[in-house]
Amino acid sequence: MTAPTPASYEPTDRTVPTRSRDRARYDRETVHAILDEAYVCHLGFVRDGAPVVLPTLFGRVGETLYIHGSTGSRPLREAGRTDPGLPVCVTVTHVDGLVLAKSAFHHSLNYRSVVVHGTAYEVTDADERRMALDALVDQVVPGRSADSRPADAKEMAATAVIRLDLAEVSAKIRTGGPNDDAGDLDLPYWSGVVPVARTYGTPVPADGLAPGIATPDYLAAL
Amino acid sequence: MTAPTPASYEPTDRTVPTRSRDRARYDRETVHAILDEAYVCHLGFVRDGAPVVLPTLFGRVGETLYIHGSTGSRPLREAGRTDPGLPVCVTVTHVDGLVLAKSAFHHSLNYRSVVVHGTAYEVTDADERRMALDALVDQVVPGRSADSRPADAKEMAATAVIRLDLAEVSAKIRTGGPNDDAGDLDLPYWSGVVPVARTYGTPVPADGLAPGIATPDYLAAL
Repeated sequence: MTAPTPASYEPTDRTVPTRSRDRARYDRETVHAILDEAYVCHLGFVRDGAPVVLPTLFGRVGETLYIHGSTGSRPLREAGRTDPGLPVCVTVTHVDGLVLAKSAFHHSLNYRSVVVHGTAYEVTDADERRMALDALVDQVVPGRSADSRPADAKEMAATAVIRLDLAEVSAKIRTGGPNDDAGDLDLPYWSGVVPVARTYGTPVPADGLAPGIATPDYLAAL
Repeated sequence: MTAPTPASYEPTDRTVPTRSRDRARYDRETVHAILDEAYVCHLGFVRDGAPVVLPTLFGRVGETLYIHGSTGSRPLREAGRTDPGLPVCVTVTHVDGLVLAKSAFHHSLNYRSVVVHGTAYEVTDADERRMALDALVDQVVPGRSADSRPADAKEMAATAVIRLDLAEVSAKIRTGGPNDDAGDLDLPYWSGVVPVARTYGTPVPADGLAPGIATPDYLAAL
């Protein structure tokens, strides 16, 4: 018997913020929800001693994040070359609101973010690679991988996949209105929150798409 | 006389991608436009040999990015302590569309991103610090810094500001529809682009905001 998965990630020195600790969350449910609403992450790694941060797609499967790329792309090559793996930091951020306070100092954002520290490893198992690529497509549009042509052998050979287990993980969340100082409340400036959201427009069919192919229902769900 | 600023950033080994080079841009006009549409960046730095990526606000003033934080926050402390400065990578990403191809392999995003490599230095000059904090507020809501209470001496003392000059910089842009293989075009899957945008909702006044304070015009401009 294996022990049940704890409901929360264990905080570490790297995942406990030095300030605003009340904004930190470690429960898996919160972390998964923030990750699953996203499909772009910012992947950080170190090259020649300097940090590199690149935006890239990811897919979550259980307690693992998958990232893919060309076998020629630098971080993926380095994850494959490096033994034992490539130290990475993967960060996902949603902006939910602009927080305008009476004072410039208390201006802020409402946001939800997840930061994952760990080591990325190249995935070499053929089944896991295929599953990861489906997950990457479905992270963007749930249901899409089953409604497209799967990768053929040549495409699989051109694609590198790395995995990062969710172990050293934290979320950070800010919600609510401005935290103005009591002495500022009578100042004549507007204060409050401007909601921010990601929205999807009407799908635009590709040039030459056969007219008989209707817009799929899974796009309406976005 | 100083030489006129070149229209483009000089490509370097770090800013020339190993693939999709046709998506790379180096002209300042394109880079500035991508930066100015954003206010959240992902700041990468190295701590104990491992990468760290944190979302944070930034402001652009000419050829400089400013980032601020509590004097207690780790990266800002480290930028102040480290001589000569803290190596960083600052990345800004806009997602413009989901690109759904006939093949899973050719799925992609339309996006615009900027990656800045360099060294961040703590700003100690009082005037530059104040200007930078105004820029940070105005990056989020243009015109807002003049319509809020400026930081007082205590707030200034609690705030660290770092600067990163725009020198080693590249943008990357993908636009347009899916790049399907010719042999896939007759497959029965929908293909095309789902537009993605950041949108702003109706401003929500703070609890207790005096009813006489109207929503400012600069919020309507968002």
